[in-house]
Amino acid sequence: MIVNMSDNATEEEINHIIQRIREAGFQPHVTRGTERTIVAAVGSGGRRHEIEALSVAPGVDNVVAIAQPFKLVSRQTRPQPSVVSVGGGNSCGVKIGGPEVVVIAGPCSVESREQMLETAEGVKRAGATMLRGGAYKPRTSPYEFQGLGIEALKILREARELTGLPVVTEVMSTEDVDLICEYADMLQVGARNMQNYALLRRLATVKKPILLKRGPSATVKEWLLAAEYLLSGGNDQVALCERGIKTFETATRNTFDLAAIALAKELSHLPVVADPSHGTGKQSLIGPVSRAAIAVGADAIIVEVHRCPERALSDGPQSLDIPQFERVMRGLSAPLRPVLVPNRGPVPA
Amino acid sequence: MIVNMSDNATEEEINHIIQRIREAGFQPHVTRGTERTIVAAVGSGGRRHEIEALSVAPGVDNVVAIAQPFKLVSRQTRPQPSVVSVGGGNSCGVKIGGPEVVVIAGPCSVESREQMLETAEGVKRAGATMLRGGAYKPRTSPYEFQGLGIEALKILREARELTGLPVVTEVMSTEDVDLICEYADMLQVGARNMQNYALLRRLATVKKPILLKRGPSATVKEWLLAAEYLLSGGNDQVALCERGIKTFETATRNTFDLAAIALAKELSHLPVVADPSHGTGKQSLIGPVSRAAIAVGADAIIVEVHRCPERALSDGPQSLDIPQFERVMRGLSAPLRPVLVPNRGPVPA
Amino acid sequence: MIVNMSDNATEEEINHIIQRIREAGFQPHVTRGTERTIVAAVGSGGRRHEIEALSVAPGVDNVVAIAQPFKLVSRQTRPQPSVVSVGGGNSCGVKIGGPEVVVIAGPCSVESREQMLETAEGVKRAGATMLRGGAYKPRTSPYEFQGLGIEALKILREARELTGLPVVTEVMSTEDVDLICEYADMLQVGARNMQNYALLRRLATVKKPILLKRGPSATVKEWLLAAEYLLSGGNDQVALCERGIKTFETATRNTFDLAAIALAKELSHLPVVADPSHGTGKQSLIGPVSRAAIAVGADAIIVEVHRCPERALSDGPQSLDIPQFERVMRGLSAPLRPVLVPNRGPVPA
Amino acid sequence: MIVNMSDNATEEEINHIIQRIREAGFQPHVTRGTERTIVAAVGSGGRRHEIEALSVAPGVDNVVAIAQPFKLVSRQTRPQPSVVSVGGGNSCGVKIGGPEVVVIAGPCSVESREQMLETAEGVKRAGATMLRGGAYKPRTSPYEFQGLGIEALKILREARELTGLPVVTEVMSTEDVDLICEYADMLQVGARNMQNYALLRRLATVKKPILLKRGPSATVKEWLLAAEYLLSGGNDQVALCERGIKTFETATRNTFDLAAIALAKELSHLPVVADPSHGTGKQSLIGPVSRAAIAVGADAIIVEVHRCPERALSDGPQSLDIPQFERVMRGLSAPLRPVLVPNRGPVPA
Repeated sequence: MIVNMSDNATEEEINHIIQRIREAGFQPHVTRGTERTIVAAVGSGGRRHEIEALSVAPGVDNVVAIAQPFKLVSRQTRPQPSVVSVGGGNSCGVKIGGPEVVVIAGPCSVESREQMLETAEGVKRAGATMLRGGAYKPRTSPYEFQGLGIEALKILREARELTGLPVVTEVMSTEDVDLICEYADMLQVGARNMQNYALLRRLATVKKPILLKRGPSATVKEWLLAAEYLLSGGNDQVALCERGIKTFETATRNTFDLAAIALAKELSHLPVVADPSHGTGKQSLIGPVSRAAIAVGADAIIVEVHRCPERALSDGPQSLDIPQFERVMRGLSAPLRPVLVPNRGPVPA
Repeated sequence: MIVNMSDNATEEEINHIIQRIREAGFQPHVTRGTERTIVAAVGSGGRRHEIEALSVAPGVDNVVAIAQPFKLVSRQTRPQPSVVSVGGGNSCGVKIGGPEVVVIAGPCSVESREQMLETAEGVKRAGATMLRGGAYKPRTSPYEFQGLGIEALKILREARELTGLPVVTEVMSTEDVDLICEYADMLQVGARNMQNYALLRRLATVKKPILLKRGPSATVKEWLLAAEYLLSGGNDQVALCERGIKTFETATRNTFDLAAIALAKELSHLPVVADPSHGTGKQSLIGPVSRAAIAVGADAIIVEVHRCPERALSDGPQSLDIPQFERVMRGLSAPLRPVLVPNRGPVPA
Repeated sequence: MIVNMSDNATEEEINHIIQRIREAGFQPHVTRGTERTIVAAVGSGGRRHEIEALSVAPGVDNVVAIAQPFKLVSRQTRPQPSVVSVGGGNSCGVKIGGPEVVVIAGPCSVESREQMLETAEGVKRAGATMLRGGAYKPRTSPYEFQGLGIEALKILREARELTGLPVVTEVMSTEDVDLICEYADMLQVGARNMQNYALLRRLATVKKPILLKRGPSATVKEWLLAAEYLLSGGNDQVALCERGIKTFETATRNTFDLAAIALAKELSHLPVVADPSHGTGKQSLIGPVSRAAIAVGADAIIVEVHRCPERALSDGPQSLDIPQFERVMRGLSAPLRPVLVPNRGPVPA
Repeated sequence: MIVNMSDNATEEEINHIIQRIREAGFQPHVTRGTERTIVAAVGSGGRRHEIEALSVAPGVDNVVAIAQPFKLVSRQTRPQPSVVSVGGGNSCGVKIGGPEVVVIAGPCSVESREQMLETAEGVKRAGATMLRGGAYKPRTSPYEFQGLGIEALKILREARELTGLPVVTEVMSTEDVDLICEYADMLQVGARNMQNYALLRRLATVKKPILLKRGPSATVKEWLLAAEYLLSGGNDQVALCERGIKTFETATRNTFDLAAIALAKELSHLPVVADPSHGTGKQSLIGPVSRAAIAVGADAIIVEVHRCPERALSDGPQSLDIPQFERVMRGLSAPLRPVLVPNRGPVPA
């Protein structure tokens, strides 16, 4: 942490800062410039918030944080990439973060037994290796479909038995955690709950892997700190999920921050999943953007598929039907467009 | 709802839409232009999401919603402004939404009995009529101060008894609702929990008023729909709170959307509170921005005050000390700067 | 400038940075922590960009700028607020930044002689002390009305003669600068041209005051640096204009950043104008938001007024008609809503 | 265009709208719902802005645009993708939009003859087929390096002669257009000038292809309308360039909107170039993000390369050195990571 003094800071004010840095458990180091003085708080055992609050002490211009605030999720703590294992038992386990890209597919919401089972078989046939389906739905309006709850969980279990594919579903409340752990292989924290810390603290104690979606206005740093809640509480089976952020652009539902996938993998050892369905909100973009997500380093993609998107109870406009999903799957293994090779004429040495 | 067909939509595709609109409980009205056809879904009893999902039906370009999706919070439903009553009993009740502006003040977090009581007396002396103080703190990092919990609730009760001022404090989890209802006069839903629907549904059933903060990336529409969860679940004692949104600007902690206060009051009958502390994140801006909030129509302001901001365990940089808060209070009743009067020379008729 | 070395930076890498800081004209000061080393570049005569580029030198984590990059516009350079004088000669001069708030009003575009003159008289009668009107219009689409050009300039001159009010109009191109200087009292740089540096450099050489609109995605720092182009080039008659920034919110045309007005006045000595018409894009919000702008410290407001907004060739939805403008003007001098006074019962000392 | 009447609109108000729609050159079609009435303006020959302005007519709730406002850039106008030819003559021409991806590389600014020629040879050797280099630099601060101007143009010509690669460079002012046309093969409109309409109108008349960067806060629609200025003015040799937008995320310089590349190619026939250097601002992300850009459909990438980024006069932190660029080039032809294949056990029919 660096405390930048104002141009006209007095000696007394500088000494006050030096003393406060010591009180906060750091060592102060003073650099006096021709115009202004900076005081660094050095060491790792001190209390950061006490230095941050010095921004309002007399004679201080501002305080700048140097080190990253996350620890357990950091690549510096663990240079090797983590692998998150999902399923096993009566579903065939998959590894997110391994050498191959995992494709997770299924409807936004479980709407009925037939809808879910038909979709599960369809996406498996097309090449998906994990299922998704919402039982408890966070909806912007109280008048929208809120999910079938426990009935949906039972249908998801049946879909898993039928296909052998592990299942991820969203948990919205601490009160539902135990129940969902019984039925699902992986628990999703939705984007709107990324900073629901009561929920994160509860999920830090379960034995299931977590899919942690990035909030629509969360920075990469805030997203990693939300994961830090899980790891510091005891659960290190965490996959991050980029699903788009809110910006001024309205032609897509969100702005899909693909560079954040590469950045998250650079800063952290956790695997990263890409959600092109929410990331774009548009059927036609899901194919190209899924390819881009793999190219940029995503360990898995999660795609909304519905047997009849125009009849979906939620997220219809961004859901693929089965044939569309099959085409997207085929596109994932097509080679990249070639690069124009220069006319290798004589270039002077 | 309006379904816009593509330029080259076929008769069969148009007929399919007409039929689907009927199935969804609306009446279809077709308008055929020279280039394209639009089909309106008319009526109020239908299922909106079924029309929205038609955006992926063959021959459809897009679907546009016309009517606002919220009902109980709307001015159209209730043209008179609502008044939210807080406290009473052994604290003197205040009315948010009445003819006078309520000032709520206190520390970000309750840190100790002395700190809270001293601050409570100080802000009362300066003119505040409600107290704030956090017992359960949503913190970006798990390594930051998380609040004193029930101990803080007891201190808040003591501060209320000492000053006679009602108390608002944040609730982060459904599991804490009953406990906090025992101690506080008003429950705050923090910005990060604005779309924690499990929490909203639970708070819809309590007998205490709710302070609903706008999420950092929530549109005004989403904010009002979050309030709709409370009203439709049975709790109509709701005050909205604007606290700034996330934008590209980094010179302030958030971008304080003052126009949204006027807009929320135009669209809804609910009272609106302004939070200039989070809205700006900067001590020096709190005075002018509080005045602006009152000028634009806010029914209350909520300000963070700490006896020594540079020692605050949270939000120090945006907290005022007691003398600063006194100055802000005095500024609230200063007249607006006068407008230059034109030289009223002869203007030709 | 502070260069933060990586945790594992070598002595050689640190020495390289020390040497490069010297080469760039600064003095290096090294602080060695238990985990990492920081190197400060001290002094004011060095080349900042050379330090910034060190972020990619081996062993460097990142580089942090401490001091503000603007000079002539800064309050530190000139603590007294600047006053910008507009008009004089055959129009009555007004002072932006003086003790009174200046109201600038008129149509978005000059559409005809009758429209402009009628509006000019109307806004003067209602209390405006400056006129606005577009002759050259920056339009998102090439198929929209692009302004009447020189014909509009002549009409503006006539409106000024008729009312005695000085006139501001937008300049879009270096090629039009001389012509517009002949006709207008103040030249506006539109939001889309805030970083058109060729234009700024040209305007730095004229003898007329400049109204510099903030770009829709410009930070306050970038806005002040655009003004620095004008001052450093020789023109210190500059008024800043906040007109809203682009965010995810769509209920208003832009998000009006009122706190930025207070912040700009804190960082700079230049006067600040508020544009609630573009800032909100909504007739009904212009009254309350204009009051808020004055409350927060704006030195002037600029409002779009049209004799018949529904027939305006541009910006109709945000234009006021004359009677609406008269009501807004009356509202500007209404007192602020009073603050609830606490029941001053016995508070224990 | 659709005019939505308020719930309580009178017959007189509805009739006024019907008449105004006729005056604007459209045919009105009325749909009366149980709660509200909508009036569609049908036809293609009318004046859109007159319908938009009706949003402030009495009894109107809002006005919604249906059709896209751009024409010549639209895929509907020209379903075949356009190919932009750059160079020829003494440089070997390249085609942007052809079957192969073009790689454009070079320094942010031309700083000296040696720097530019060395870089040009280096990037050609690594596989680039076009050169970039700034002669006139738009800089946020007036105290930063502003480019070498005509001297840089001469050096760029020499680099082209040396390597045979065509050159793109930025034009900032109408006054420089003719000069730059003499020296460069393609003219770049920088992000900050995307809505400098005076410049666009001038460039619509030149015989050189244009690289049109997306503004940092421009929607895809606004970007395409800026291109429409060029095409409607007579220049159809236009390549769009996505270079990142401004959002709340600060870990990257901009948020690179890769989905916008796919969307622009869906809406328009123009080729799209990706700029990962500005899009991310971080050396380490340029490789993965370049691959993603190709995967999502970009026709070219433009990359900043400097022989010694830590000594660059501009954009050092995001510039690659030659060996780094060679590694990025090799990565562009590496295959995509494979997708996990499901265990194809018996799935019940």
